[in-house]
Amino acid sequence: MSEPNVSPLLTDLYQLTMVQGYLDQGMHDTAVFEFFVRNLPSGRNFLIAAGLEQVIDYLADMKFSPGELEWLSGLGTFSTDFIDYLESFSFTGDVHAVPEGTIFFQNEPLLRVTAPLPQAQIVETRIINLMHFETLVASKAVRSVLAGDGRLLFDFGLRRAHGAEAGILAARASFLAGFDGTSTVAAGRLYGIPTYGTMAHSFIQAHDTELEAFEHFALAQPDNVVLLLDTYDSRAAAEKTAELYPRLKEKGIIIKAVRLDSGDLVEESKAVRRILDGAGLDGVKIFASGDLDEYAVGAIVAAGAPIDGFGVGTRMVTSSDAPYLECAYKLVEYAGVARRKLSAGKATLPGRKQVYRFFNDEGIMSHDVLALGGESLKGRAMLERVMEDGRRPDRVVPLEEIREYVKAQIDTIPEPLRALGEAPRYPVELSAVLRECRKDE
Amino acid sequence: MSEPNVSPLLTDLYQLTMVQGYLDQGMHDTAVFEFFVRNLPSGRNFLIAAGLEQVIDYLADMKFSPGELEWLSGLGTFSTDFIDYLESFSFTGDVHAVPEGTIFFQNEPLLRVTAPLPQAQIVETRIINLMHFETLVASKAVRSVLAGDGRLLFDFGLRRAHGAEAGILAARASFLAGFDGTSTVAAGRLYGIPTYGTMAHSFIQAHDTELEAFEHFALAQPDNVVLLLDTYDSRAAAEKTAELYPRLKEKGIIIKAVRLDSGDLVEESKAVRRILDGAGLDGVKIFASGDLDEYAVGAIVAAGAPIDGFGVGTRMVTSSDAPYLECAYKLVEYAGVARRKLSAGKATLPGRKQVYRFFNDEGIMSHDVLALGGESLKGRAMLERVMEDGRRPDRVVPLEEIREYVKAQIDTIPEPLRALGEAPRYPVELSAVLRECRKDE
Repeated sequence: MSEPNVSPLLTDLYQLTMVQGYLDQGMHDTAVFEFFVRNLPSGRNFLIAAGLEQVIDYLADMKFSPGELEWLSGLGTFSTDFIDYLESFSFTGDVHAVPEGTIFFQNEPLLRVTAPLPQAQIVETRIINLMHFETLVASKAVRSVLAGDGRLLFDFGLRRAHGAEAGILAARASFLAGFDGTSTVAAGRLYGIPTYGTMAHSFIQAHDTELEAFEHFALAQPDNVVLLLDTYDSRAAAEKTAELYPRLKEKGIIIKAVRLDSGDLVEESKAVRRILDGAGLDGVKIFASGDLDEYAVGAIVAAGAPIDGFGVGTRMVTSSDAPYLECAYKLVEYAGVARRKLSAGKATLPGRKQVYRFFNDEGIMSHDVLALGGESLKGRAMLERVMEDGRRPDRVVPLEEIREYVKAQIDTIPEPLRALGEAPRYPVELSAVLRECRKDE
Repeated sequence: MSEPNVSPLLTDLYQLTMVQGYLDQGMHDTAVFEFFVRNLPSGRNFLIAAGLEQVIDYLADMKFSPGELEWLSGLGTFSTDFIDYLESFSFTGDVHAVPEGTIFFQNEPLLRVTAPLPQAQIVETRIINLMHFETLVASKAVRSVLAGDGRLLFDFGLRRAHGAEAGILAARASFLAGFDGTSTVAAGRLYGIPTYGTMAHSFIQAHDTELEAFEHFALAQPDNVVLLLDTYDSRAAAEKTAELYPRLKEKGIIIKAVRLDSGDLVEESKAVRRILDGAGLDGVKIFASGDLDEYAVGAIVAAGAPIDGFGVGTRMVTSSDAPYLECAYKLVEYAGVARRKLSAGKATLPGRKQVYRFFNDEGIMSHDVLALGGESLKGRAMLERVMEDGRRPDRVVPLEEIREYVKAQIDTIPEPLRALGEAPRYPVELSAVLRECRKDE
């Protein structure tokens, strides 16, 4: 695919047809849209906001190219005025958002766009597309971080991620949620995320013997020797590792770790640990991978398996137990008037909103209150302005800072929310003013 | 994200470390890798191959840019010889594959790469990434086509697809599986897929009255008037549609359809149909959307709802009931010797293979046989050469032709496989020679 991921045509056709309608009627007044998640997926106790940096890039850079305009024009459904509007399009609005990495709950706006109606409308699809996916993956990944209890975690998901951008953004989202790195090289280059990787089964299979494969790999990557044990028989391969270790050491090469990718990881890791320790190789770490998610990681850790790090892939990057969030980007105000929809099961709260977070005396989160923008409550206001008049913020928040922020917040959530199973819902209350608004539904 | 989706860094780091190992040992002999799906997800009776065109583009265009080489070099883990190798890299191998749109089953290779080992290795991750996702979505989408029983189907999934590429490729995969179009504008431009779209709730909400919104939309898009009914009250909106119809007709504008996006779609569509028919508007179609998948479409059709077309989004583009396939790209031959792995639960069959398909006297598929490449069976051989010496094929198969091929095959599958629920497994047998190979596992 030669099209980069920045095309403004990454949108639903109806955004364009609606904008033409707005232009025809001169509807350029200020609109306010909010992005939020209606309900948490079952089994999830909190979510983590991610994707804001990509949204800011998208908004700041959004331009229609001559080729795109010509193609749209050729469809025959759009007016010349509309094509002219797109030609000179740039986003000039404000964006308020919770910082990336913020823990949040149902119905809390993560992002608010305030802009002339056509602008705020045309950006809907891609804003949802970016915020939804990174939030989905960060929220899944942090559960492996909790389950891993300090063990190393690597994203191995690119191959089964849903396309290229999913693989790259999943690496970013899992890293900000607390993973230690990724196997995805492009994510290393784009975001400076540490990359990890050693060998696959094919490397072993292409050699006549497993021992020869181990040796060749060690010579080619002397600072990065992690041997894959399960191509034929993991325990026999552990014996070979023990045999090879002193020979390589003479050449100044240290085997750092071994990896198991199939079978009963608890039993196999214990057997391999015994073999390695028996040969005095207690410094050689054991990594595990293969169909892992937070439940498997939690069970392996609980079983006392001597595993030092986990490669987590497919199930995290597809968020396989909850592959989407019930999120929406909804108009809440136009031309100074609060707006809402009343669709069955999908009614929205009118007016621009703020989330206030309250803590108990021990600094643990006690409850959130959703209030109208004009109200001023005592809690911590979670949304802040990140874009003014379409300008980029002065500073891009580094991923390392977001990781620290996630880690610090995890220490402040009520203990039951840390469980992988579903806990009683964290209280998200409506302010008195919003409760009044809802009465007439 | 400024990086296009064609970067060769869309790979796992271990592909690069392994290739350096191969180069160091002069391992340039011919390797054969096969891509296949180990098991069908539960509830799926067949899968549809997709993604081949994107794989061919990837292989034919694969080049490392100076910036990418410089970055890799700066990591300090790769040799100068290796960087030189990447600098002059181009794919010179052969690719055999089943045509896009082919129905297939567990363990059947969809794609075979025959190339010098380092080349065949380095392309693994992106080949899986492309083939996996498009196959996943095409296989999900065709179920809505079966359930829809001739009704129109539109892909509305971009917003909750996993990133930009997922949205675009899902539009392609669902179209080749039999959908009628997509809302994703970029997919329209890239692949010539018909695009559809009219208005969202925000368009209605931004106006002071629903009737005014309907009228403004019709004036802006006179050839494309589909009115969204469920922002406040669907039946009241249907009455307004009936009221507006003659007024617009006087101006030469015809209301083509209405759309329902929430509530009980069966009951609401029947009520709306009655209102429209009561006003003599039996030519106005009813479309439905909102959390739909093949099960919902099938239930709505079975209930006799007067719905003429469905917008299917999130659940299809995320394949929400089976968000990934157990697929792999495995070395089966190197330097003329058949290769295999024996990992617990993930053993592979050695040697390059062909799939032969057999039909009964009525032209209905009876069974497949998996055979070694050297064997010649009487059935229809499903893999054919699509790339020779790294050259693109002379002809890109048009999407319309793939759609026809899918449709024709659907007519040849055994009746039980057409059900949405799980049917008895279609027989995939091993040839006598392959059965013999498996004996010594």
